[in-house]
Amino acid sequence: MFCLNSTRTCIYSNVSAGGADALRNFLTFLCLSLPFVAVNPCCYYPCQNSGVCVRFGENLFKCDCTNTGFYGDNCTVAEFGTRVRLMMKPSPTTIHFLLTHFHWFWDMVNNSFLRDVFMRLLLTGRSSLIPSPPTYNSKYGYLSWESYYNTSYYTRILPPVPEDCPLPMGTKGKAVLPEPRVLVRRFFRRQKFRPDPQGTNLMFAFMAQHFSHQFFKTDHETQGGFTKALGHGVDASHIYGDNLERQHQLRLHVDGKLKYQLINGEIFPPTTDTVPVYMEYPEYLPPEHRLAIGDEKFGLLPGLTMYATIWLREHNRVCDILKAEHPTWDDEQLFQTTRLIVIGETIKIIIEEYVQQLSGYRLKLKFDPTLLFQERFQYSNRIALEFSHLYHWHPMMPDSFLIDGTEFTYSQFLYNTSILTHYGVEKLAEAFSLQPAGQVGGGRNSHESLYFVAENVIKESRATRVRPFNEYRKKFNLSPYTSFSEFTDDEDMARGLEELYGDIDALEFYPGMLLDKARPGSIFGENIIEMGAPFSLKGLLGNPICSPDYWKPSTFGGETGFDIVKTSTLKKVVCLNTKWCPFVDFHVPPVEEFGEQRTQSTEL
Amino acid sequence: MFCLNSTRTCIYSNVSAGGADALRNFLTFLCLSLPFVAVNPCCYYPCQNSGVCVRFGENLFKCDCTNTGFYGDNCTVAEFGTRVRLMMKPSPTTIHFLLTHFHWFWDMVNNSFLRDVFMRLLLTGRSSLIPSPPTYNSKYGYLSWESYYNTSYYTRILPPVPEDCPLPMGTKGKAVLPEPRVLVRRFFRRQKFRPDPQGTNLMFAFMAQHFSHQFFKTDHETQGGFTKALGHGVDASHIYGDNLERQHQLRLHVDGKLKYQLINGEIFPPTTDTVPVYMEYPEYLPPEHRLAIGDEKFGLLPGLTMYATIWLREHNRVCDILKAEHPTWDDEQLFQTTRLIVIGETIKIIIEEYVQQLSGYRLKLKFDPTLLFQERFQYSNRIALEFSHLYHWHPMMPDSFLIDGTEFTYSQFLYNTSILTHYGVEKLAEAFSLQPAGQVGGGRNSHESLYFVAENVIKESRATRVRPFNEYRKKFNLSPYTSFSEFTDDEDMARGLEELYGDIDALEFYPGMLLDKARPGSIFGENIIEMGAPFSLKGLLGNPICSPDYWKPSTFGGETGFDIVKTSTLKKVVCLNTKWCPFVDFHVPPVEEFGEQRTQSTEL
Repeated sequence: MFCLNSTRTCIYSNVSAGGADALRNFLTFLCLSLPFVAVNPCCYYPCQNSGVCVRFGENLFKCDCTNTGFYGDNCTVAEFGTRVRLMMKPSPTTIHFLLTHFHWFWDMVNNSFLRDVFMRLLLTGRSSLIPSPPTYNSKYGYLSWESYYNTSYYTRILPPVPEDCPLPMGTKGKAVLPEPRVLVRRFFRRQKFRPDPQGTNLMFAFMAQHFSHQFFKTDHETQGGFTKALGHGVDASHIYGDNLERQHQLRLHVDGKLKYQLINGEIFPPTTDTVPVYMEYPEYLPPEHRLAIGDEKFGLLPGLTMYATIWLREHNRVCDILKAEHPTWDDEQLFQTTRLIVIGETIKIIIEEYVQQLSGYRLKLKFDPTLLFQERFQYSNRIALEFSHLYHWHPMMPDSFLIDGTEFTYSQFLYNTSILTHYGVEKLAEAFSLQPAGQVGGGRNSHESLYFVAENVIKESRATRVRPFNEYRKKFNLSPYTSFSEFTDDEDMARGLEELYGDIDALEFYPGMLLDKARPGSIFGENIIEMGAPFSLKGLLGNPICSPDYWKPSTFGGETGFDIVKTSTLKKVVCLNTKWCPFVDFHVPPVEEFGEQRTQSTEL
Repeated sequence: MFCLNSTRTCIYSNVSAGGADALRNFLTFLCLSLPFVAVNPCCYYPCQNSGVCVRFGENLFKCDCTNTGFYGDNCTVAEFGTRVRLMMKPSPTTIHFLLTHFHWFWDMVNNSFLRDVFMRLLLTGRSSLIPSPPTYNSKYGYLSWESYYNTSYYTRILPPVPEDCPLPMGTKGKAVLPEPRVLVRRFFRRQKFRPDPQGTNLMFAFMAQHFSHQFFKTDHETQGGFTKALGHGVDASHIYGDNLERQHQLRLHVDGKLKYQLINGEIFPPTTDTVPVYMEYPEYLPPEHRLAIGDEKFGLLPGLTMYATIWLREHNRVCDILKAEHPTWDDEQLFQTTRLIVIGETIKIIIEEYVQQLSGYRLKLKFDPTLLFQERFQYSNRIALEFSHLYHWHPMMPDSFLIDGTEFTYSQFLYNTSILTHYGVEKLAEAFSLQPAGQVGGGRNSHESLYFVAENVIKESRATRVRPFNEYRKKFNLSPYTSFSEFTDDEDMARGLEELYGDIDALEFYPGMLLDKARPGSIFGENIIEMGAPFSLKGLLGNPICSPDYWKPSTFGGETGFDIVKTSTLKKVVCLNTKWCPFVDFHVPPVEEFGEQRTQSTEL
């Protein structure tokens, strides 16, 4: 670190720290205290309630409080309307408690028009927290045409920590952030597998991974918050490829269908022999075991190849249905219309089963785009870097994988495409539905094979200068934590984090999201729900198919296709495409119910 | 043309027609009458009121009337609310008459809160006609992810004429469309220059060209409705280049500024010697006369290089102002913030002066994004092929160009960059402000140098299968014309068009837009206003800077920048960047006023 008289600013040189700590701290102190050194005042995050800090002159700033509902030098004085709203609005904890209790009340709501009312409130309340059109990105901490236009960037909800701040997190905390390796080993490491108390299973965990990687595709070759998933939402690019060339390689070009191979009369993704798209596989894997899938990384796990198979079969099944009604349609129209149906089915299942499961809400969630037709709502979406970070839920992964009585270790499981073709979709779906996933909230539940993932997120968040966790709390209308012991009730962790970060206002985003105390009986702590849900719902409902000009039968080829979307369930998507109908759900079954829940696909 | 039993459809081979007319008509008749030939029923455009036609089986169709306010087999039966609305709503002609008369009434409105009320009505009424997210494109006559996602296409308001229709315009009109050359020579050719009765001048005409080509950049290399302007709106790419590489070549990389050259102490665009970007110039032009500008085609006309110079100067002027307030900002932040200010200034001038001029409205138009903050409005835009076509207003161009007492023919004017550097911005702006532009509506007012432009639009509209003009009338809630004599009061033209097209329902889009009868005392007929204004206003207000998260002082560097945007005028943009302040406006002055209107820039 050195102080420059010329720019009157403190700048850190990129010293990879260690023993230089004391010196750094001293120099920081010097930098902050010397009268001639003007610290960028925005490093203090002086603007509250989403006010925008603009630096004037050398050491002046102004908070722009426009449209925040607050005024004053730091946007801290509530306007009258805001005061009323704040008084009326229950806390997130209260709302969560209400939504997850009072069975009898929600049973009544779920069977009346009130279901729509609450669902609409949920959607508008959550999605209004996401700026749209998007604002910042990892290069631009201020609004610019480039950050609006260039969709190669993830967007950012908060700007990066300014480059010229005296400390890595602004003006608080230590001069050197803790080693990611140390953080992960001390606070993420699993001692004993802790299953999610909500009963979430591996079928959910693999869906999370399969579904989210259509819009989370960090471009690691181009450092600095770039993405390769330019659709920025639910575009089914994980099924159809993220570019036109790959799509055409995956397509059969007959009746709108995708290419496939038959194994014992059953449809599976083709191999890279016949569909020469780039796929990431270890060198030892013979060509006949390399499945070709929309996403080049999805050969990694049998859970992902299973979902790829399910959607491949579903796509081709829907093509047949459309073709029967529209014999004159060409391959292109059958393909494109089926793609919209698959996108619609995905959103339906994600909202009504997947989000339902992870929220734990008693309100029965509903996918009904018409709920927003009279609301101010932007039908567009841009994936945020923060959303990508907070979605790293690797504690869900178990210690090993149990399939049909056999236990697979990680090394036996990874890139093992034979598991899919050997057991088939039925047995895999049932196995994954029966095996519990790990609890995410509370920390100390990551399998050692996955330490590197958490370390990489932390490293990336530093490279992209993600702001402190407490700044995000405030952005999402949550009170900032005042101490580490408020943040977690794991005393050892509270002490450890305090020692490493020095200040709760310097705690980083990802550790903050993953290590907070879990809500009682819940998979997550407060933060992932309160900050994740807005991104999630905005992305799902912001899809163009949810807009008034798209959400109509003709978009899906007529009433038949529209009905497929509107009545889609996980079970249907699996069982309409398998020989027998396994138990399939996003949570493990109560033991006594398991037998009953196996049904025949003919019953669907 | 041949009939295929196998597909039971009539298909035209691509015979470039002529004498084969009679045979074609006979075969069409045969095709339409033979019982075994199923014509695509959507070729009859059976769905009214924006209903969507979907073909089922071979010769069945269904109209999807969702959200149209109508129902019934053809979406022709109005719902109760629609009936009430239709009864209450005055016709476009009535509204136009009201808006362009009753001076005393509008004087009152313009000075009260009613100005906001009417402006909001205008904005919401017009922009609700434009589907957003966008729908079709030249390849996809049905909704698809590809047409939503692939911004290389212009969007389309109506799908193309289906490929398998028996006649080029569907099922009506002649089997062969009239030769573009014939159409242009018979109906577009100027006999005597007819000035616009609204007084529109060349300053307006060049602004139209300069402004609109930032979002109209048809990619002629890739046939089929593609664009090179991927910003799809007011992004100032005509100033900064339509890609990052070009932008960086044009930038000085000091204080946010653009590169420039000084001639007699005045700022002009640099030459391609020093800024080696691709520019279209004739071979004979020496390097020192080749100006380097954001848009590669803008060396064509002194009117365009003049505007390029004005915006270049304005950009650098704003950079200085920002730098003075924000001495710590780097080149990038100064550049990006200035770009947003320039975009804002452009939109302000376009709405309050340019659209004001062409509309002829007595209501004083207002650029105030907050008017829409409580409305359902999508802050996104996609440029439509139809908008690009209807914006070809070449009848505005005069027979020759008068500058400071000298008359320039087209051949002397084109690519003559010395005119700008010789006369300077002051004299050019004044000359263009004094010279009347031609009337567009009514036809017969195109200079012979520009016949090729109209011919090319017509050719492109055929290559991209643009639907009949009357279908567009209906789409924009206008009654379809029932005869050519209703369409134009030029009897010779009505007869000629009837003879060439055979049916008013087969009249093409571009001739329909340009040849309709002008409204009394107006530059345009009804159609360009009624169909153009929705595209225009949606594009202007759909800009991200108009959204609630952007429209605030900090976006423009603080109150100073925000004020520049909010108070920008054509006159200020010219006169704050010139040595003396010429007469400058979008309409020619009443003769007696001209002297008074020359002011000094110090008065601004």
